[in-house]
Amino acid sequence: MTDSRRRPIGVFDSGIGGLTVVRALMDRLPFEDILYFGDSARVPYGTKSVATIQHYTREIAEFLLARDVKALIIACNTMAAVAADVVRSVAEPLGVPVLDVIDAGSQAAVAASRSGEIGVIATPTTINANAYARAIHVMNPQARLYSQACPLFVPLVEEGWLDHPVTRLTAEEYLKTVLVEEVDTLVLGCTHYPLLKPLLADVAGPGVQLVDSAVTTAQATAATLERLGLLNPPAAETYYRYFVTDIPLKFQTIGERFLGRSIQQLEMVKLG
Amino acid sequence: MTDSRRRPIGVFDSGIGGLTVVRALMDRLPFEDILYFGDSARVPYGTKSVATIQHYTREIAEFLLARDVKALIIACNTMAAVAADVVRSVAEPLGVPVLDVIDAGSQAAVAASRSGEIGVIATPTTINANAYARAIHVMNPQARLYSQACPLFVPLVEEGWLDHPVTRLTAEEYLKTVLVEEVDTLVLGCTHYPLLKPLLADVAGPGVQLVDSAVTTAQATAATLERLGLLNPPAAETYYRYFVTDIPLKFQTIGERFLGRSIQQLEMVKLG
Repeated sequence: MTDSRRRPIGVFDSGIGGLTVVRALMDRLPFEDILYFGDSARVPYGTKSVATIQHYTREIAEFLLARDVKALIIACNTMAAVAADVVRSVAEPLGVPVLDVIDAGSQAAVAASRSGEIGVIATPTTINANAYARAIHVMNPQARLYSQACPLFVPLVEEGWLDHPVTRLTAEEYLKTVLVEEVDTLVLGCTHYPLLKPLLADVAGPGVQLVDSAVTTAQATAATLERLGLLNPPAAETYYRYFVTDIPLKFQTIGERFLGRSIQQLEMVKLG
Repeated sequence: MTDSRRRPIGVFDSGIGGLTVVRALMDRLPFEDILYFGDSARVPYGTKSVATIQHYTREIAEFLLARDVKALIIACNTMAAVAADVVRSVAEPLGVPVLDVIDAGSQAAVAASRSGEIGVIATPTTINANAYARAIHVMNPQARLYSQACPLFVPLVEEGWLDHPVTRLTAEEYLKTVLVEEVDTLVLGCTHYPLLKPLLADVAGPGVQLVDSAVTTAQATAATLERLGLLNPPAAETYYRYFVTDIPLKFQTIGERFLGRSIQQLEMVKLG
């Protein structure tokens, strides 16, 4: 019989952004094996309808469950916002816990904020789904949320303009509406945004604490696996496998920037 | 028997950008009926592999041919760059002429440039496919091309920052490499870029003529239909139908900005 602690963790995203979560998991849980799924043929999900996103998300969750993962991590805010229930409906009957970036980020924001004035920046789909506001208000009904969609941050990150005057000017424009409310906490509600953390910290100023949902998701995963007795014991070797539905130009370059190390074991698969 | 001049023109794109070509067609050929296909469920194509783009493009061409179009217009630089031959292979046996934005834009650039020093700005996929350079050199082997990928222009247009300091700063940065070569002609090699024409004209300065591939494609279409005796005679009414594979948030808003008028007859269809 297989030791169920030794099963891999499944992490997925519509593209490469979720690699920031993988990176945080590698740092926080260095003895865990990880399967990553990036739906690069169909990225971005943010511009698709809810029904389409739910359909695609279910396919990915089933793909990873068929590979016997011990936990599923939704490392994509769009999927977490509109399809987390779909993932739970297929994973929970198998006893597989589901974590997601919105839940983890919201918990961290509520814990971090002293004033209860919290800003959230994310893609338009995530903001429109209002998922952070709902998650945070479940945890703290007194919290006051200020949301701002930042559609240009993803392309700026993918262009590699992480510390460019254009990015700074864009950040100043986007953050204006949030900063005027004197928030003390700002949730980076998109897995691309951790790469902008130095610049955003600078624009937001010292009075604002940034919540990086990649790091907080890794912490939440560690806590859940420990509670369920599913942490892998220290092992000599771990493996990481990356499944994608297409290998576009620059996937490797951009992916490695997100992951902070090289990508081996990249495999192309077909869904649907 | 149907008068074959009365058949509609088929125009297609991976998303909404091709609506700038539809707009130019409406202005240039006001008696023609138009079927537009935007593959909004699978946009953007620019980040996908060549094999995937060719597969999707063929599906769209067959969809429109099945609706008895008299001409097919590839209103997407990515598809024109890597899949024009696929479209011709299905359309030409049926006697349906195929026009595309790269061919039309290249012809206009060669005609416009006196010095033969031509700049091309486009998305990374179009630039990497080197399609403008190849098309222009067939027409004028002495031309000297200077290409620049501008990945941020599409998201800036979709954000509506058509005359924003961020867009100006981005344009100054992208155009730097092209302007230093003292080009006298600049091809806007992406169907999103006509919306930036005033700003780009300003950044490029009075010595540089901009080639708008939407306008030039409409002109080339008029010439081809006339040559083939396929121009629709003046009619009291024309119809426009828009097929999309998904109706994302803001499709209507952004689409109408591209089209310069309201979108009626929007239908969702499934491909593949």
